[in-house]
Amino acid sequence: MSRIAIVDQSTSEFTKDTSLSVPELACDPCRKILEHHKDCSIEIDALILSTTSDIQYGSTIISEYLGIKPTISQRLDNLCNSGTNAIVSGYSLIKSGLCKTVLVVGADIRETKGTQLVWDISRGGFTAPIYWASLFAKMHMRKYGTTEEQMASVAVKNRKNACLNQNALFRKKISINDVMSSKKLVGPIKTLDCSYICNGASAILLTAENEAKNYTDRPVWIEGIGSSTEAASFSSVSSDLSSIQSTKKASNMAYSMTKIEPKQIDIVELHDAFTIMEILAYEDLGFCEKGKGGKFVSQNNISINPRGGLIGTGHPLGATGVAQTVEICEQLKGIAGKRQIKGCKRGLVHNMSAAGSSSLVLILS
Amino acid sequence: MSRIAIVDQSTSEFTKDTSLSVPELACDPCRKILEHHKDCSIEIDALILSTTSDIQYGSTIISEYLGIKPTISQRLDNLCNSGTNAIVSGYSLIKSGLCKTVLVVGADIRETKGTQLVWDISRGGFTAPIYWASLFAKMHMRKYGTTEEQMASVAVKNRKNACLNQNALFRKKISINDVMSSKKLVGPIKTLDCSYICNGASAILLTAENEAKNYTDRPVWIEGIGSSTEAASFSSVSSDLSSIQSTKKASNMAYSMTKIEPKQIDIVELHDAFTIMEILAYEDLGFCEKGKGGKFVSQNNISINPRGGLIGTGHPLGATGVAQTVEICEQLKGIAGKRQIKGCKRGLVHNMSAAGSSSLVLILS
Repeated sequence: MSRIAIVDQSTSEFTKDTSLSVPELACDPCRKILEHHKDCSIEIDALILSTTSDIQYGSTIISEYLGIKPTISQRLDNLCNSGTNAIVSGYSLIKSGLCKTVLVVGADIRETKGTQLVWDISRGGFTAPIYWASLFAKMHMRKYGTTEEQMASVAVKNRKNACLNQNALFRKKISINDVMSSKKLVGPIKTLDCSYICNGASAILLTAENEAKNYTDRPVWIEGIGSSTEAASFSSVSSDLSSIQSTKKASNMAYSMTKIEPKQIDIVELHDAFTIMEILAYEDLGFCEKGKGGKFVSQNNISINPRGGLIGTGHPLGATGVAQTVEICEQLKGIAGKRQIKGCKRGLVHNMSAAGSSSLVLILS
Repeated sequence: MSRIAIVDQSTSEFTKDTSLSVPELACDPCRKILEHHKDCSIEIDALILSTTSDIQYGSTIISEYLGIKPTISQRLDNLCNSGTNAIVSGYSLIKSGLCKTVLVVGADIRETKGTQLVWDISRGGFTAPIYWASLFAKMHMRKYGTTEEQMASVAVKNRKNACLNQNALFRKKISINDVMSSKKLVGPIKTLDCSYICNGASAILLTAENEAKNYTDRPVWIEGIGSSTEAASFSSVSSDLSSIQSTKKASNMAYSMTKIEPKQIDIVELHDAFTIMEILAYEDLGFCEKGKGGKFVSQNNISINPRGGLIGTGHPLGATGVAQTVEICEQLKGIAGKRQIKGCKRGLVHNMSAAGSSSLVLILS
């Protein structure tokens, strides 16, 4: 069967404040992509909007703003991994033969209701994600001796990476001491251990294999897809609190689809909603042994979160999975500018939802 | 390429009042389907929730309520045709090879924000759908001599059909006079010309062709899919106000995919949000000539809206497209009870969004 290509990608600047609506935000990266291909009379068969913001038939509104009439238009949500879910949906629409070109756009505003898990009655009053991050952190510290300094060093690394990313929300280096002395919110999680919910939009253009050459000399191929839904309620998601089951399952599924092993991955965008989540992801994605994540922060073999991750770049919920994918595409194409990691050939995107309720992993080449 | 089967279907009773949440409503038809197949250790690879209600990661919450752990879980919205869009998404996930079984559930509550098009700034103050129904009706009356009585007879027919549907909201016959003397809301549209937004949920189970026999002796096949997105703003959707362009395009796409002509269709569920919309759909789906829809109401060759349509059954926005599909499946399988249309072999589902902003057509056999 033929492969699915990502033939173009674009992202907006991520911001704390905006006067734009979700459809307006979404148009920015879409317009850039359409502009790139204006000479080849591009036809968009489907537009899929990923957002956690409460907007009805937003994909239709965006289509009109863009002046396109896609056959299929849909809005998709699965909280923080809406973005990669939308990419999977676009992949399927092409693979099924219904579409040849799909524009996937993720967009969100800081005020989205997706930041509080009020829909999930099993979480009781603990609707803010920081509560579960705290539990994961405490368990990892107790069980494996992971330190607050190791967590802090994730933030230091990702903020440093973000300095080279002109679209990132935070473009100033911070020190371990800055993180350690930032306000303790829910112990041991401090302000600078957290990603920041912000405004932003990212888009990618997917095509069938035989269409890809019309758009680019260097398509990025979606080689592997892995996904897993565990449960909604926190107690069911992570019974042992020291790993994310959905991430393990999703990555194993993606690895087995591609027959690629973790050590063959050169570059990773992983879901560092909190610093502890990056450490857990190292382990659950198979980059290091269980329990060794704290020490793995300082490794240099694989480039992890080169754009700055969620912590450095900001986290516009519905856009994040698409933004992560945009970064891997730019890196694989060798057009990541100052952030360019030399010689990377295989990339992985890890996008998670609500304490690991579900995880989605893409392997790109 | 192998076909995609609908192997089971279920719908809840549609109601005016409910104390249930969207996930709770959604569980009812899903549980019935899972119960039917409890002996064959059913594994759901994906759960897709169609709803216009503002609920984050609802598909994950529903999965937990049902005790299933699907690989992929997504919530999808495209206003009133969210339901058939979710079916197309499920179809693609199977056709792409990513999934073997997909549970599609549509569910909505009466209080959904989807009833007002407040997101669409182009509609100004005219955010209620009845305004555009009024414009369509006036144009059709002026251009083709369609009468208010002909529109009323759509309501009479659909309410009559609904009397045989135990899940329908309205199970009492009405007369032309009842419709004509009901309160005029926005001329010429009267109360009984309108569908009623209500609570309800419907679900279908999709499988790959080679899996279908494990679930049923009589799978229903998705033979044709047609979809079209015109625009969000009303003025761009229907420049001539006497037809729904997106419905024309979507049905032509579905007919050409199947090489089936309108006259070969035995049974239809079409989107009668208002009586005038059924008349327009007759024409735009190709069942009669443009302008002849008013007279076509009294025909008996094709069974149209046998469950009672949106007008008789009620319109739980995100559930409607799935509920329409459930009806066609039951009819094709010969299990529609008192409503059973004898000898029907090919069915069509027509599901529309916001004044024809987009339309989706499925052809089933």
